[in-house]
This record gives sequence, C-alpha cells and structure tokens, in this order.
Amino acid sequence: MRDDEFKPIIPPQVARHAPTGTLLRAVRRESPEGLDIALYGVPMDQTTVQRTGARNGPYQAREYSWAVRVGSHSVTGVAPYDLCKIGDVGDAHVNHLDDEGTLRDIEEFVQAIVDAGALPLGVGGEHTISLPILRAVAGNGRGPVGLVHFDAHPDTIDNMVDYSRYAPGTPFRRSFEEGLTLLDKHVMIGIRGTVYGEEVAFAREGGVTIIGMDELDEMRPKGVAQKIREIMGDMPVYVTFDLDALDISAVTGTNFPEPGGLTIREAQGIIRGLTGMNIVGADIVCFAPPLDPRGNTALVVNNLMFELLCVLAVARTQNKA
Amino acid sequence: MRDDEFKPIIPPQVARHAPTGTLLRAVRRESPEGLDIALYGVPMDQTTVQRTGARNGPYQAREYSWAVRVGSHSVTGVAPYDLCKIGDVGDAHVNHLDDEGTLRDIEEFVQAIVDAGALPLGVGGEHTISLPILRAVAGNGRGPVGLVHFDAHPDTIDNMVDYSRYAPGTPFRRSFEEGLTLLDKHVMIGIRGTVYGEEVAFAREGGVTIIGMDELDEMRPKGVAQKIREIMGDMPVYVTFDLDALDISAVTGTNFPEPGGLTIREAQGIIRGLTGMNIVGADIVCFAPPLDPRGNTALVVNNLMFELLCVLAVARTQNKA
Amino acid sequence: MRDDEFKPIIPPQVARHAPTGTLLRAVRRESPEGLDIALYGVPMDQTTVQRTGARNGPYQAREYSWAVRVGSHSVTGVAPYDLCKIGDVGDAHVNHLDDEGTLRDIEEFVQAIVDAGALPLGVGGEHTISLPILRAVAGNGRGPVGLVHFDAHPDTIDNMVDYSRYAPGTPFRRSFEEGLTLLDKHVMIGIRGTVYGEEVAFAREGGVTIIGMDELDEMRPKGVAQKIREIMGDMPVYVTFDLDALDISAVTGTNFPEPGGLTIREAQGIIRGLTGMNIVGADIVCFAPPLDPRGNTALVVNNLMFELLCVLAVARTQNKA
Amino acid sequence: MRDDEFKPIIPPQVARHAPTGTLLRAVRRESPEGLDIALYGVPMDQTTVQRTGARNGPYQAREYSWAVRVGSHSVTGVAPYDLCKIGDVGDAHVNHLDDEGTLRDIEEFVQAIVDAGALPLGVGGEHTISLPILRAVAGNGRGPVGLVHFDAHPDTIDNMVDYSRYAPGTPFRRSFEEGLTLLDKHVMIGIRGTVYGEEVAFAREGGVTIIGMDELDEMRPKGVAQKIREIMGDMPVYVTFDLDALDISAVTGTNFPEPGGLTIREAQGIIRGLTGMNIVGADIVCFAPPLDPRGNTALVVNNLMFELLCVLAVARTQNKA
Amino acid sequence: MRDDEFKPIIPPQVARHAPTGTLLRAVRRESPEGLDIALYGVPMDQTTVQRTGARNGPYQAREYSWAVRVGSHSVTGVAPYDLCKIGDVGDAHVNHLDDEGTLRDIEEFVQAIVDAGALPLGVGGEHTISLPILRAVAGNGRGPVGLVHFDAHPDTIDNMVDYSRYAPGTPFRRSFEEGLTLLDKHVMIGIRGTVYGEEVAFAREGGVTIIGMDELDEMRPKGVAQKIREIMGDMPVYVTFDLDALDISAVTGTNFPEPGGLTIREAQGIIRGLTGMNIVGADIVCFAPPLDPRGNTALVVNNLMFELLCVLAVARTQNKA
Amino acid sequence: MRDDEFKPIIPPQVARHAPTGTLLRAVRRESPEGLDIALYGVPMDQTTVQRTGARNGPYQAREYSWAVRVGSHSVTGVAPYDLCKIGDVGDAHVNHLDDEGTLRDIEEFVQAIVDAGALPLGVGGEHTISLPILRAVAGNGRGPVGLVHFDAHPDTIDNMVDYSRYAPGTPFRRSFEEGLTLLDKHVMIGIRGTVYGEEVAFAREGGVTIIGMDELDEMRPKGVAQKIREIMGDMPVYVTFDLDALDISAVTGTNFPEPGGLTIREAQGIIRGLTGMNIVGADIVCFAPPLDPRGNTALVVNNLMFELLCVLAVARTQNKA
Repeated sequence: MRDDEFKPIIPPQVARHAPTGTLLRAVRRESPEGLDIALYGVPMDQTTVQRTGARNGPYQAREYSWAVRVGSHSVTGVAPYDLCKIGDVGDAHVNHLDDEGTLRDIEEFVQAIVDAGALPLGVGGEHTISLPILRAVAGNGRGPVGLVHFDAHPDTIDNMVDYSRYAPGTPFRRSFEEGLTLLDKHVMIGIRGTVYGEEVAFAREGGVTIIGMDELDEMRPKGVAQKIREIMGDMPVYVTFDLDALDISAVTGTNFPEPGGLTIREAQGIIRGLTGMNIVGADIVCFAPPLDPRGNTALVVNNLMFELLCVLAVARTQNKA
Repeated sequence: MRDDEFKPIIPPQVARHAPTGTLLRAVRRESPEGLDIALYGVPMDQTTVQRTGARNGPYQAREYSWAVRVGSHSVTGVAPYDLCKIGDVGDAHVNHLDDEGTLRDIEEFVQAIVDAGALPLGVGGEHTISLPILRAVAGNGRGPVGLVHFDAHPDTIDNMVDYSRYAPGTPFRRSFEEGLTLLDKHVMIGIRGTVYGEEVAFAREGGVTIIGMDELDEMRPKGVAQKIREIMGDMPVYVTFDLDALDISAVTGTNFPEPGGLTIREAQGIIRGLTGMNIVGADIVCFAPPLDPRGNTALVVNNLMFELLCVLAVARTQNKA
Repeated sequence: MRDDEFKPIIPPQVARHAPTGTLLRAVRRESPEGLDIALYGVPMDQTTVQRTGARNGPYQAREYSWAVRVGSHSVTGVAPYDLCKIGDVGDAHVNHLDDEGTLRDIEEFVQAIVDAGALPLGVGGEHTISLPILRAVAGNGRGPVGLVHFDAHPDTIDNMVDYSRYAPGTPFRRSFEEGLTLLDKHVMIGIRGTVYGEEVAFAREGGVTIIGMDELDEMRPKGVAQKIREIMGDMPVYVTFDLDALDISAVTGTNFPEPGGLTIREAQGIIRGLTGMNIVGADIVCFAPPLDPRGNTALVVNNLMFELLCVLAVARTQNKA
Repeated sequence: MRDDEFKPIIPPQVARHAPTGTLLRAVRRESPEGLDIALYGVPMDQTTVQRTGARNGPYQAREYSWAVRVGSHSVTGVAPYDLCKIGDVGDAHVNHLDDEGTLRDIEEFVQAIVDAGALPLGVGGEHTISLPILRAVAGNGRGPVGLVHFDAHPDTIDNMVDYSRYAPGTPFRRSFEEGLTLLDKHVMIGIRGTVYGEEVAFAREGGVTIIGMDELDEMRPKGVAQKIREIMGDMPVYVTFDLDALDISAVTGTNFPEPGGLTIREAQGIIRGLTGMNIVGADIVCFAPPLDPRGNTALVVNNLMFELLCVLAVARTQNKA
Repeated sequence: MRDDEFKPIIPPQVARHAPTGTLLRAVRRESPEGLDIALYGVPMDQTTVQRTGARNGPYQAREYSWAVRVGSHSVTGVAPYDLCKIGDVGDAHVNHLDDEGTLRDIEEFVQAIVDAGALPLGVGGEHTISLPILRAVAGNGRGPVGLVHFDAHPDTIDNMVDYSRYAPGTPFRRSFEEGLTLLDKHVMIGIRGTVYGEEVAFAREGGVTIIGMDELDEMRPKGVAQKIREIMGDMPVYVTFDLDALDISAVTGTNFPEPGGLTIREAQGIIRGLTGMNIVGADIVCFAPPLDPRGNTALVVNNLMFELLCVLAVARTQNKA
Repeated sequence: MRDDEFKPIIPPQVARHAPTGTLLRAVRRESPEGLDIALYGVPMDQTTVQRTGARNGPYQAREYSWAVRVGSHSVTGVAPYDLCKIGDVGDAHVNHLDDEGTLRDIEEFVQAIVDAGALPLGVGGEHTISLPILRAVAGNGRGPVGLVHFDAHPDTIDNMVDYSRYAPGTPFRRSFEEGLTLLDKHVMIGIRGTVYGEEVAFAREGGVTIIGMDELDEMRPKGVAQKIREIMGDMPVYVTFDLDALDISAVTGTNFPEPGGLTIREAQGIIRGLTGMNIVGADIVCFAPPLDPRGNTALVVNNLMFELLCVLAVARTQNKA
C-alpha cells in the first residue's frame, strides 16, 4: 500500500542518537497531497491564562523524535508505517498578536490536509486550537463528529475572563454551538479539580458523558473504551488529548497540571481500546516545554502521539478498504 | 452564613494569572477573630536532619494560589467559601536560632486561632511544628484528639540523634506523653521504608493503627476512610499530612521523599472519605520548595490543602448547626 | 520627614528568612496617597514574541524580598527608607486577552501615582508597558522627559511582525511620536546583537546617543554617567531598565538574553552615577521567572531595583527641598 | 554470625545528614575476602546509544547513602546487616576508550567477588555490563542461571547499529549464546514501547516469559513473583533491574525512560516476592545522574538496592545453613 | 552575488517565535554545491572523558535558531546573508560504536564541502572532530593552515588515557604531526587550569603562542587580534572554538567548564578582530546541551557562530574578488 | 620531601571520569599525623538565616574531584603534590541540633590538625565555622593571625537576630574579641550590598581595610595582593573565602549571592598574589549544593581550593626550610 518514499527516517540516514527534526520520524513533506496521515504542529499559546510556553511544543516534539522507534506496537501489533503513507507537513501559521487571523490560518492549514484525503494528527499549542481544527474536520457539511476528550477541565466556558469567546476554556462550547460536535456524543475523561459551576453544568445537562477518577477506578481503561465504543458506534470520531488529563506526576511540562489524574498506563489503555473505531483525526495539546526543559514531558507526548498514530493508521486502512 | 468581606480574591481583583499572595485565595486578616477557618503558615525547618528548605513552604504555597479555583469540589460538591468565613492570618513567628522560643510562639499563634473559635489549617514547615499546634488544639483540657496521620515515618522516636526531644522524628511521642493524642486513636497511613525499630515498636505496641502499602492495596482509599471513621467515631480529630506519605514520583519538594508511597488519587480519596467527621484542624508539612523550584510540589500542596479545607468546612458547618 | 507608618517590614514582623510579600520590604498600601515613592508591578507579557513568562515577574520580585536589606547603600550611603515614605501599591490590572484595555489600565494606574505626587518605580512585565507608563509620567503637558534606556535592543520598530504598533519592539518609537520623549535626550546603553536596520537607523538618525559595548569599554561606567548628565542637565528624566542589557551570564530569567552585555557591576556603576539627577520614575522590565525558577534573576532584579530606589529617593528629596 | 567490623556506618561516625561515601552505608573494603555480600559499582556508559551519563551512577548512588536507614525492612522484617557481612568493594575498572578491555576488567572484578564466596550486588552503568557480570557469576561451569529481568526493552538484539555485538541492546542474546542463561528460565518484566521485531521474536520464540503491563495488571506483583518461583524452582537466579522498567514518572535519571511502566510499589512488591529464592547476584543499571541532578532517581536506586540487599541477605543465609 | 533561493528563513515562513530547524536560519540543502559557506553539525561525543552530551549539540543549536536575527552585525556592519550563499547541509554521519569509521565519515563529509568551494562552519560535538575537519581543510596538499585556537586546554596530548591517539585531548598533536598545522602558526587563547606537563611543554617548546588570562588582561581583545594578524599574515587560517575557553559563568553546557576564562565580550572582540583575514573554516565544539537544558549555552553558541559567520563571509567575499 | 604514599589518586586507580571521593584527589587519611596539609570538611549550616544547604558542601566538593587535575599550576608553576604530603582527613563532627557542641567539636578537630603540624584547608559549611577554626589556629597563645577575608558581608555583627552571638554574621566580631584576629590586620575584599550600619561601622572604625568594588576596579588584583602583603608582612595569616564574595553570575550554589561581586579571575589573581606569604590555613565557606545541583558552583569551589592549596604548599615549604 505504501512505497519507500514514505519510509520513516532511521539510521544510518541520521545517527542513532540524533533527532530527525520531524514528528515521529516521518519524512518532511511540503504538502499533504498523497498522504494517508498528516502530522503537523500548531505553535500557538497566546490566549493561555496562567503559564504560557505551549508555543514551543511542536518543535520540542520534533527534537525528541530520537526516542521514537518505528516498529510495530508492542501490544496491538499495529505497524503504522507499514499500513500508511505518513508525513510531517510542518506547522500552521501563527501570529501571536493576531488571535482571529491565527484561528483562520489554522483552519485553512488543516482544511488542506482534510481536502487531500489525509487524517490530521496535530501537536499544540494550547487547547484553543481544537476549535479551528474541528471546523476543518467537521465543518462545511462533513460533521458533526463524536468527541473523545481527555482533559482535567471541561473547556466549555461561554466567555473567558468576561472578555473572549475564543480561548483555552471555550473551544467545546463553540464547537457545539457551531454544530461541529454533539453533547451526547462527547466523552470527557479525567475531569477533576475545582471547576467553575457553569461549564460543568452546561456539559452535564447537555448530556456529555463525564468520566472522573472514581468512574475510571471502577470501569478501568477497558471499560472506558467499551463505553466510548457504545456511545460512538460507527460515527466519525475526533480525539483531543489535553496533557493535563494525566496526573501531575506524569506531566511537568503543561501549563496547568492538576493533581490526581490518569496514569500514563491508563491513558495508553484507553487509546488502544479505540483501535478499529472510525477515528478521523486527533491532537495533543497543552505541551509547554519551558516548564520541563529536561524533556520527560516530550517523551510522554511522543509516546501518546505514537499510540494515536496506530489508532489512526487502522482507521485509515479500514476507510480505504 | 457568610458575607462578602470573606469572599476569596478572584479576578478582576488580581489578574487571572497572578497570585493573590494569600493561602488558597483567601482574604488576608490580621487576626483570626470572626473566622470559621484560619489558614496560616509556619516557616520553621531548623530541626530538620537531612535536607532543609521547609522554611520556604508557606510563601511558595501562597505564590501558587494562582492555581487554586474556588468553586465547588468536583466530587463532593462542597463549596467551602460559601459555607464558611475563611481568612489567611499569616505566619507564626519563627526564630531559626531559638528552637524552644519558636515552639512557644507557634503554640501561642495557634492558640489565638482556637480561642477565636476558628479551625486552624496550617502549612509548614517541618513536622516538629505539629507538637505545638496540637498543644493549642488539644491542650488545656480540650483534648485528647484522634489523629489521622499521613506519613512515611512514624515520628514517634523518643530522642532525636541522642540529643533532643523536640525534632521532626518525635512530635507524636511527645503528643502522646502530654495527653494530647491517644495511641489507639492514632491512624498512620503510608508508613514504609526502613524504620528504626524503637519508633515502630512503640507505635505498634501502643495500639496505633498502621496502614502500610499492602494494607492500602487491599482496603483501597474508601476502606481506609471507613476504618478511620470506625476508630474515631464522633471524637474530635486532627489531620496531619506529611508530604512524604506520597510516592516520590508525586513529591519532589520534600526533605526526605520515600519511594513506594501513596498516589495523589489515593490521598485525595482518603481525605474526601473524612467528610462529615468531627475534624478540628489540619496541617500539611515537610514542603521544601528549594528542592522543587519549578513548582509541581506547590501545586500538589495547594490541591491537598483545598481537599482539607472542604473537609474542615463541612465539619465547621456541622459544629455550628 | 517620614513617620513610622512607612518603616519597611523587618524582623520580628516576619521571620528573618521569610519574604514580606511586598516589593523591597516596603509596607503594602492600597493607594499612593501620601507616598513619596510608589513601588508597583505590571504582570503583562501577552505581546512578547519569543519566550513569555514576564507576567510572573512582579510576584517573584516580591518573593525575593527576603534578600533585601534596608540599611544604607554601601557606596553612596543613601538610606531611602530614612529619606522617603515608600509603599508597595500592588499591581496594575492586566487582561491577557485585551491588549488595548490593558494599556489603558496601566496608564490609569500610574497616573494615580503621579497625581498623588509620588515617583513611580515599577517592575514588569514586558517592555511594552513602558509606553503607558510614559504616557502617565510625561503626558498631558508634563513631558517630554529625558530617557535613560538600558537595553540590548533599541525597541524603536515602527510595526511589529507587520501587524501591531503596540508590542515590545515599539514603545520608544511611539513615545517619540507622542511627544513623551525626545530623540536627542534619549540615551541607549547596551545595544548589541544583530539588529533590524530600520530601528537602529531611526534612532541614530534621530540623534539618539547609543552606547554599545565598545563605547562602554572606553568610557567605563563613570564616563557613561557623566555623558548622561551632560545630555540631560536638569530636565526630568525617566529610567527604563530592560534586563537583557545585562550579559546572559548575569540574567537567565529574561525572554531574550543577549550574549556580550553589561556586567552587573557596570550597571550598578552607571545607575549610581545618576544620583542627584532629576529622576522622575523608573522601571525594570523583561523579568521572566519561569526561565530561572531557582531565583538568581530575582536576586539581580531586587538589587537593581534597590539601586534605582536610592537614586529616586535622592531626587525626591531634592524636589521637595 | 557477623562481627562489628561490618556494622554499617551510622552517626555519630558521620553527621546524621552526611553521606558515608559508600553504597548503602556499608563499610569500605579493599577486597571481597570475608564478605557475604559485596556491593560495587561499574561506571561504564560508552556504548550507550541515546543519552549517556550512566558512568556517573555509582558515585551518586554513594552520595545518596544519607537517605538509607539500615534497620529492618518494614514489610518483610529482614535486617540484612544483622544477617550478613556486607562491604562496598569500590568500582570495577573502566576505560571509556577501550570497550573490550573494559568488559574483561568487569568480569575479572566480579570474578574475584564470586571466588571469595560473596554475592555480588552492583550498580551501573549501562546494561552492557550485565554480560561480563554474568560471565563471572555463571561462567566456567557454574551456570547457567535463571534470569529475572526488569526492563522496558528485551536487550536481545543480535547486532547493535549493524556494527557491534557488545552494546546495551545485546547482553542477553550473548548470555544465551554463551550458555550463561536459558531462554525458558528468563522472565522479562516491563517490556513495552515499540520494539524492533527481531529481538522480541527471538525472545518469544525461544520461550522467554514476557510480562507486559497488561499481564501485570492482571497478575499483580504477587502473581508475578509466584510465576517466577514456579519457573525457577531452586535453581540459582540472577536479578537484573534496568531502571527503565519503571514508569517515566518514577525515573527521570535514566537514558531512555519509557512511558507506561511499573510503579515503584509494583517493583518493590515483585522483588519482595523473591524472598527465599536462591538468588546469586543482582544489579541495577541505566542510572544516569546528569539527567536528574536533583537526586530523585538516586533515592529510588538506593531504595531498590536495599530491597535487593534484603533478598540477597536471606538467600545468603539459607546458602550457609 | 546571491539570489533569493539562499535567503534565510524568516517570518512569515515560520512563526516569529518558532525555530527554523536549521543552523542560523539558513536554508536546508542536501548538498554543498553552489554554496559559499556550508553550515553543518557533527554529533560525536563518544571519546569524551568526563561528561558526555556533546552529541546533542547540533540539534539544540538548530532549536535556538529562533534567537538568531539575520540583519547586519551591530558593530562591524557585516551582513553575511547579503554577501554569501549560505546553507545548512545537515550532519556528518556518526556511529558512536565505531570511532575510526566516524573520523573517516566526518573527513569525507567536510571534504565534500571544501571540494564544492564552500567554507565549512561546523558545530560539535567534542574536540576530537577538529582533526578530521582539518584533514579535509588542510590535507591533500592544500595545507598547512594557521590555527586560531580558543580553549582552556592545549589538546596536544600524545596519547589519551595511555590508550588512544584519537580523543579530545589529542587533535592538535595529530594535526601537527600530519602537517595540517604548524606550531609557530598556532595561537592558543584561554589556556588555564592545571594542565598536564607534557602537552604544554610540547606546545610551548614547539613555538605555539599561548595567550593566558594574564596576557589577555594586558593585551585586551584588540591586542590579541592584532597579534594573531601579525603571526598569520595572509596565510589561510582555521578557527576552532572550544566553549570552555569561556568562563564557567558564561557556559554551563560544556563537558569540562573551567573557572576563570574569557568573558563573552572578550571572545566576541577577538573574533571580530579577525575580520578581513583569510579564514578558511571554523568550528565551535564541546557544546553539551544536557548540561544546560534551559538553553543559555545554546544562545551563546548561536551568537558566537553568527560572529564567525560574519568573519567567514568577509573572507569568502575577498577570496572571490 | 614526600613519598608515594601521598601521591594523589589518579587513573588507573579510578576511571578517568570517576570521582575519588576525596578532596582535590588527595588520599584519605584517618588522622592528620604526618601530613603537611590536611584537607577537611565541616558540614554545618544550622545557624544559617536565609537559605540552608551548606551542610551538603563537603560531600559535593568531593564528588567534583573528577574535575581536579593535579599537575602544576598553569600560571605560578606550583605543584602542591610534589611539594607536600597532602591528605583528606574527613569531616568534623556536626550535630545540627546542638550548636555549642558542634562549635567545640570543630575546634577540637582542627586543633588535632594544627597539633600534628599540618596546615588546615577546610570547606564548609556556613561562615560560623571560621570561629572555632580560628580558635584552633590562633588560640592558646599561638595567635593572633592576620585575616584575608573574601566576603560580600563583614560578618562583624555583635548579636544575630537579637539572639545569638554565634551565627554566620558574627564570627569576626568574636574572633577579634577573643584576640584571635586584629582589626588592623584584617582585610575584607568584596564587601557590598546594603549592609547593617553597626557591623560596617565597627569594622571601619576599628581599622579594618575594606576593599569594595570601586577599590578593586582601581587597584586590580595585583594591587590588592600588594596591599595585603604590605599590611601583613611576615605575620601568620589565615584566609577565609565566603563564596558570596564572587558575583552572582559565578556562584549559584551559595545561600546569599550578592550581585556585583568579584569575577573568578579577580579572585584567582588575588589568591595567587599571596604566594610566598606566611599562610597558616584557609577555608572556603557558604557552598550550598542544593541551590546548584548541576554542579557549576562545585567546579568553582574545587578550582579556588586548588588555588589556595598551591599558596599553602609554598608557605608550608618555606616554613620547613
């Protein structure tokens, strides 16, 4: 199904210990044409409230490509680079002084991926970016999509700091209003901490399935995946992974780590459980390297991104069949 | 029950990302008069053996107030600032060259809180401080109190480095001797590591309930909370949380982290399970910011302190009813 | 001239090792009324290009107040707290999603200080803030003021990233256009690195005095101070200190450190040389604590802020005489 | 059974907070003669692919000896220093420019320990060192030994980077070929991440028991230990612990941390479950202090090393009986 | 002289704050053909004695390309991208298990640059790499070249650890023996610390000009540059810059920082003083990012590399004229 | 003069990159008998006001012994290990809960060195330790000694925090009162920052020679050394080096770094200028490794300690002649 042009970059093309400078060792492509899966970055963090730095996420993700090994998945056996044509198409354009223009540019960038028939797998950047991505993935009559949403916070606030409708706390309020997602096809995993009344009430009353830590303790990852499959059925599903869904002991490099979250094993287990579903895209957000310069968070990001790549590769193969 | 004077400090009083400079966003009060719950700090660490730095705990706890959100608890639904009048009354006086004087000053400081009818919730500072706090809370005919004690170490040594009866390894030997606590109403959670024979023997023979990791694996947090409730009944109970009860992967900023301890979720689960008990005060100790300058430990401390605040708020409300 | 109400906060009011939570140990004041010098913070960094984090500057400056000793200056002998009534009036309001509103709020905040007859000494925050500060200090017919400007970069760009006229690279283009500063009464110290042609050409052609490293090597700090005094004479002068004027070995916690700059001793020497001039305000900007969590930069900021305080205290005393 | 010469180094021989400069507070011995258990280091990392630094492992392990308390084990009750004569015999010789010579020197060094009748407990250094150690422990007609192997990676590659048969990815391919270990008496715990096809196929087809995360979730530590006991019976068993078996949240200071691994409690549980087996030696490898200068990994290493010491002490005592 | 194909990568091609992933913002080129100056990396550190990590140098240098501004030099006015066609040709191949093969591969890689008529400007990597680079630059009848050598150590040992002739302490003993450099056309700047007798004696007796700190204090950077010009005249000269020539306060991310070295300003001054000389290539070595993950050293490396680029651009322009 | 028993520990006794675990690579000696110079540590920091951690100084100094090269000094040519018998005699006993007992134990420990006829060279530990050291060196009729005192602060306070006469701010008030030092034979180098009036007044009025930064700028290191020689003549002189004499850019790992101090080169220059004087002992204090875990400060400490060792070796040789 694939030819050598899309073989990942491995030694001796680069030294064994050197980064490839691309996401997950994929080849660099100027355009998404011809790809099955397009990897990309969105270096935006200008609407972040507390601690910024996610603008540096895409690049450090590429730096830690040295830690990626491109064989088959040790549990599921999926070998994404054998199944699909995969390329890194670079970063969406971001102007940190122009929020609206940046949202437009991100949408256009992902639109080109979708139009080329490739599945988008992005790394941010703050959670604000998921709105323009969803506009590209689920807008213009294509949507709505189901939403698998890993996060410590619902991000369904109506209006951020009494000022803006476009910020890290609002994307999924907007995506619902714009018909890109449906509340009863929206599963939140990892919600915890003190939360503002409004955003949770909105989600809960609207029918969002909220899986907190107590629910996870009972259902375990396999139960959560099973629940998601029941809710979503065959519909197209988008996966968004905010790093703060993980416990603070597993992610230092995120702007608002929240104690008491998922272990990495739990997150891996849930993602693996999505294998075979109709996944149409995914992103990992809130990766802020300046808060973890020694790179552990980058290693976690690359690991989870590879997990998502495997799920997307299976979905893409099924779509083409 | 409360008026606006005690509303926590939230935007636009400070920028969304700025610290309030007070514990848990509470208002600053020069005196505990009129408060239901008094938050305070004890910047003492001069008797610490291995790694010092806990003297900087109270201030960094206040710095990370930006990470506190003062809505209702996502699991228990408790909204402490709606239930109670809460204020930050500053730090007890500490002279690092005068151990005895400092213990007296801490006792007096907490005595004023107790005398004002407020429940004390403190942040340290080394574990030595729990003795003068207990003297204020349970002395002068008020005590003894039950003790819920999170810790990797029993802290029931008789004599520290063959020299001193007042040091981080001795407070609960002293509190027992002084009639402030009872061994059969003392629950230790998280004890592990190699331990000096004497202190464990003393605790075990005296009837202390010791919940190690194997017991926790079996009982799970809910079972532990249930056990505590059975032991304590309606008696007044004090909670002391030494950060090293948590696993080393969850707390870097503590003087003697011990591998193999509680996850944050387990700690949260046990604390939440105390809701409705007659809790009369609490402290979090052994928080040493210089050992974790990037602040993850500070985020954990604020999180657990909010969990304790919710439990105290319910207890205080019940007391008043 | 002063009364005890304005005595700085020293032990035993706080433990010897504890921060006061205020700038330079000053007392906290809700209003600038009655002050000779008002210390304040501006936690704004949302227009920063490369590395953000200066929004956390004011708070960490207050944390490292433990390192400030409020006796008399070891070289000049100035004792600011004996000469003046000094208070910390808190932070200007900042909304990270509203640039224009934030600039207005900063101007108003500093305007209140100036109107109260106090000299403003601020800590940022990014360099963008110097424009609204200058509007308050030199606008409404009070100005123009001379400008002593420590910086690695001229900050006289016309239009930032082809988009905005209000950003860290533009404040002194705007202040000139608005009549707040004059190019021939503008002294830049520390300019280096590659610089965009336009901004330097604008400065040089307009008559700005640019003191680069070679000039400093020749003139030494005393010569630089002498040159400044000749240029400014008795006119009111504002001092703005961008931390990147210092060499990268002296400042880690700044967004764009530039190798090859001033030593701390050189900076101290030049500031001290301004003693006796008609200084009407000052700021220290581009202090980004997340880039130096272990606090050395905070120590440097407090040190230079004390140097500026001494110069302001003398100026204020002369004004009143 | 032991005399005072082998009493560990405790206060007042050193200050309570000071390191002893030896492994696990043992006395320093120039030779293994007369010892029951010999602690030692191997500062080799020159064949490491990605991130080096394990050459500094032995020394930092000794530095964190301050954190070791030499009483009896809190769960098993084993008191190794009461049971055995234990000494730190220093480091094997390493020349970072001579791989073959270094392997020979390590073998000779451990051979001397084995010949003296002592059980070797080493700290590395990279995983390459386990081959010469196994040659000393199981070579010359003494072997083969069973292998309990904690690791994220099988380390059974035939040829590293198409170049070398002696490197961190190959030791257990070599040990099998040399008759030092048997594939059906080889238990791997923690294998995960993407893995190169060849090395896993070789292990699986050869009959290695591979316990991944899903198996561990089901069997729990006690089940794993039980499984190991069934496989090994009374045969002599060597334990090798690559730190990357642990989850990345528990070990920062290792060259290739792999997300989704064992918790420290799980590792402790499995090791404790080996008590009473015929353990003939053990090592902890891939400890790279430069990647975690603040020392948490060193604390974990000392903790696990003490767990292994307890298991070895019981085995040694049984052997002598 | 140049066309747009070689224009450096600037916004809006990448976001203002994003790295270009290339050295000094140059375009990426698969081959040196057509270039005036070829930038490249050598990720080798396997022969380093004390602290490794220089294998990660080239990549982090590319990451901090965000800090490079490609206008004209603020002191000399040189605008390298206007004068020359400049490209980043990637990394020489390195196999960390094959020292000899790696040296051959480096030589071949640089040979291709020289054969294409481009000047090589490399970033390491350890100092061992300068030998194969010099073989390419000065071998095969082209040499010898003059050597301007910034370093704390002479690197003229005959035999490293009594074992190897090819290691970081030996390159300039070898280059002399192979006729690539001449001792009386070799200027060492920054030599200090305790030094092994043999290497200094060899250098001093052979006629090397050694400029230690006392000489620098007297001659100042301009005097040093003047001295170099006198010694070298019009001959082709190679510049090698070991980061440890700088004082430890200016470089954390190097394997063996030596207290008491050059300030960055002094280094910049000397390099600038070489403008107009017949420089035929340069390298910066001993840049070990794991030792300074927060990036200050990367900023210094980019700065000095830009200084060297300016000098090379002038030399290249003169050569072509 | 010396025999091989005192040869420093060099490869192949330890791997080239491994620490010796002793100060400056010296051999470990249980007793000072037979030594010319005794190296030792004092892990005391319990009276430190602001930031503790100096109790870990001696051990980290020993860890960074890997960075020490024991050839001859590159400027003065002194080869201490050829001139003298040098050993590391371990640490003085410290009990962090017993200040008075600790001072007595330190005095006794150093007394044994002096009585054995060896010169003491110690590493701390806080500055408080210099008092018991001076009692051993200059008490019992041996003194008084001249004092060369590098420091940012005079340390001549009468009473610390209104409580104690024995603390880091008081040792040289006490040493004067006890007749161990003379004010007119006391030279302070590096005094700066705001200083409490009393301590400076006491020093200045008593005739102490205070060399601040302005004086150093004028006199340069050679002038300072010349001045010291004039003041001291042939009398026995003790050197105490508080790390905060150095600028904050050169020392991170000290409890109270003070911006604007000596460069390392200046410090080295002054120490070297003491060669040939009658130096009878020296110490380096206020080295707090937890504040600089990455080790740069440790490298500076080892470097300056070697400089002092060279000066002591010459003095010792002259004494014996």
